[in-house]
Amino acid sequence: MPVSHRTFTIQSDRRPTFHDVTEQVQESLATSGIRDGILVVYSQHTTCSVLIQEASDDTDYWGTELLMQDLVTALESLVPTCRTEGQYRHPGPKHIVAAAGRDELPAWSLNTDAHLRSVILGRSQAIPVVDGAMMLGEFGRIYFADFDQVRARERTVRVQIVGE
Amino acid sequence: MPVSHRTFTIQSDRRPTFHDVTEQVQESLATSGIRDGILVVYSQHTTCSVLIQEASDDTDYWGTELLMQDLVTALESLVPTCRTEGQYRHPGPKHIVAAAGRDELPAWSLNTDAHLRSVILGRSQAIPVVDGAMMLGEFGRIYFADFDQVRARERTVRVQIVGE
Amino acid sequence: MPVSHRTFTIQSDRRPTFHDVTEQVQESLATSGIRDGILVVYSQHTTCSVLIQEASDDTDYWGTELLMQDLVTALESLVPTCRTEGQYRHPGPKHIVAAAGRDELPAWSLNTDAHLRSVILGRSQAIPVVDGAMMLGEFGRIYFADFDQVRARERTVRVQIVGE
Repeated sequence: MPVSHRTFTIQSDRRPTFHDVTEQVQESLATSGIRDGILVVYSQHTTCSVLIQEASDDTDYWGTELLMQDLVTALESLVPTCRTEGQYRHPGPKHIVAAAGRDELPAWSLNTDAHLRSVILGRSQAIPVVDGAMMLGEFGRIYFADFDQVRARERTVRVQIVGE
Repeated sequence: MPVSHRTFTIQSDRRPTFHDVTEQVQESLATSGIRDGILVVYSQHTTCSVLIQEASDDTDYWGTELLMQDLVTALESLVPTCRTEGQYRHPGPKHIVAAAGRDELPAWSLNTDAHLRSVILGRSQAIPVVDGAMMLGEFGRIYFADFDQVRARERTVRVQIVGE
Repeated sequence: MPVSHRTFTIQSDRRPTFHDVTEQVQESLATSGIRDGILVVYSQHTTCSVLIQEASDDTDYWGTELLMQDLVTALESLVPTCRTEGQYRHPGPKHIVAAAGRDELPAWSLNTDAHLRSVILGRSQAIPVVDGAMMLGEFGRIYFADFDQVRARERTVRVQIVGE
């Protein structure tokens, strides 16, 4: 059975960022040779998520689509942005020592909000592939979300397809 | 490798609706000929979700199972029902123009709450299939949820199975 | 096409419990013989979830990792622990009668919070398998979460893999 694995990267900013990766995923599917099966778009990063939503058309001054900003606003009320240590229980002292051993600044661990938002929204989307096309409906777009606000980073998106 | 794709439709109402689609999914599996693999129940609609939960037995005056109503009540505190424009940032002016080009009333775009609830709960469920049976446990039922409250619509549910 | 199905069990406590099951899932993959494909870690229990997150290193007095306790704290504000009947609409009278028919105490049904938390966080994780390895990234660990606080129970975790 054919299995296809593709990766590509995006560049995040120091605020919640949402990248429309529909075209890159479509290209991963087209080059896989798989016509029917299940496609998984997956984030291996523990502060990121993969979402499917409609394009919002309008953006705010930061370039964030309005629907995604509404999502951030709702999440902010449930899981507020971590401003300083002690706001959440994580990171604790052992975690900070371990991070220092990896040459990470203590402040880089102040992303508990991003970890929790990633858990709540999930890390992947499974999409049916039929006759070579993803079943996204008329309006569905695939977004890679990075909720980490402590540093800008290059992030890896994985596209795994099984089928025939 | 066998891949099966089936669809069926449900009719939503102008309130959050939850359809127990376990039997339809079971029939999709039975007619697929696949005995072992992964089955994905998927919504292509950006204001809908697919859930697995136990049947609540009791319903409210609207016919909604009580557990699902408790879910709506919790979501209402996080993502309140959109009552009028300006409550959320989405839909913005470009989105309304684009919708008008599709002959949609502006009020039909006042479903931001439904988009956000769909993102939070997810759009699909992946279920192991073993010896021809879905592993739902003693109480698991599959629900298709439509959170869009601005108009009643026919909705498509997709069942994709890969395996052998 | 190879399909692999493995199960193992964990023992929950009468509080939200999080088990790091990465090693058991890894062993399920190693014994499957599958080198490339999609692996699903799945809970068949309607009050449980499967999460991927980084290890928190530190734990609280109960032994709960701090990041997971932060998650419980956030969920508590959205879906408070059910303390007594009537706090949520579920369980209703028919549900209690049905539970009694299964020799269940009425108080065992006072786990509506756990059902809702399971729905919000989801019941499974789909993970790409490449060259025999799960793509978990540097920090990803797999957790089985049991949110049911009314009784301690043995829980089944399922690992389903399709690929080649």
